[in-house]
Amino acid sequence: MDANAKKTALRMIPYGLYVLASRSNDGQIATATINWVTQASFEPPLVAIGVKRDSAAHAFIQESGSFALNVLGKGQQDLAFAFFKSPEAEGDTVGGQKFSTAVTGSPVFENAAAYLDCRMTEMAQGGDHSIFLGEVVDAEVRRQIEARADDETLLLRDLGEKTFYGG
Amino acid sequence: MDANAKKTALRMIPYGLYVLASRSNDGQIATATINWVTQASFEPPLVAIGVKRDSAAHAFIQESGSFALNVLGKGQQDLAFAFFKSPEAEGDTVGGQKFSTAVTGSPVFENAAAYLDCRMTEMAQGGDHSIFLGEVVDAEVRRQIEARADDETLLLRDLGEKTFYGG
Repeated sequence: MDANAKKTALRMIPYGLYVLASRSNDGQIATATINWVTQASFEPPLVAIGVKRDSAAHAFIQESGSFALNVLGKGQQDLAFAFFKSPEAEGDTVGGQKFSTAVTGSPVFENAAAYLDCRMTEMAQGGDHSIFLGEVVDAEVRRQIEARADDETLLLRDLGEKTFYGG
Repeated sequence: MDANAKKTALRMIPYGLYVLASRSNDGQIATATINWVTQASFEPPLVAIGVKRDSAAHAFIQESGSFALNVLGKGQQDLAFAFFKSPEAEGDTVGGQKFSTAVTGSPVFENAAAYLDCRMTEMAQGGDHSIFLGEVVDAEVRRQIEARADDETLLLRDLGEKTFYGG
């Protein structure tokens, strides 16, 4: 296999950007900007997300059995970059962003364009990332959607020419 | 949960378009235009795809343990629509598109912008779709990539205002 062809073909997959958030059973919060996300079923409504195996978010999702996907909107590059660094929670903010608690107990950010609050249903081991399947148990959209909903979403490509992964 | 919020938030996830192709052990070919695709690991290189549980492609992937993802490029709306209908193979074409056989035995289309040839490693049951994890064992890119690779990919949004799923 040609390593460059593999890399380029994989980079042809387009992505949106999301702040993944999860809470441990003792109340700690883990966040991470991620992009490996797809819907996985209509009925029940499922999403599949790729999460780095050695991350705090991975540990907290396994422990709590839930996570929230905060969907970033056009113009929210600053949030994407802030959560690449997995900032610590301080009171009711993480990385300067105010959060509240969704149905599953996962943190959702007031400024995100939308969120999907999910109960984990299955985990596939995969490789350096695991794939978690989550059933959407609550959702909210904080923007007026004029045309296509996916036009409102911050894309990985909106982060510039050098960024191909946000996991 | 507000059903409209759930629908809209899920539709905020952006997608590319792919012709999934798989071959049964007795040589039959199944194809389908799909969009629920994400990378799932760097090492080993894995992709995760959502496949309708009652489709021929689903059955053939389970049987053969492999599949190819043909990545559609900008301007290939005609291929996306042709494979929505899961056309029958005729000789070395499906839906008028010439294919050859990749390393895993899965069909790859000469006109596709790229392909990822995959050996199935895991299946998560999910809901009305299963999630297959596949290890990329071969790949080819048939376009000159000038800037970002994901700029070359046909997007679900390129199919017009009404198309939100191609599975």
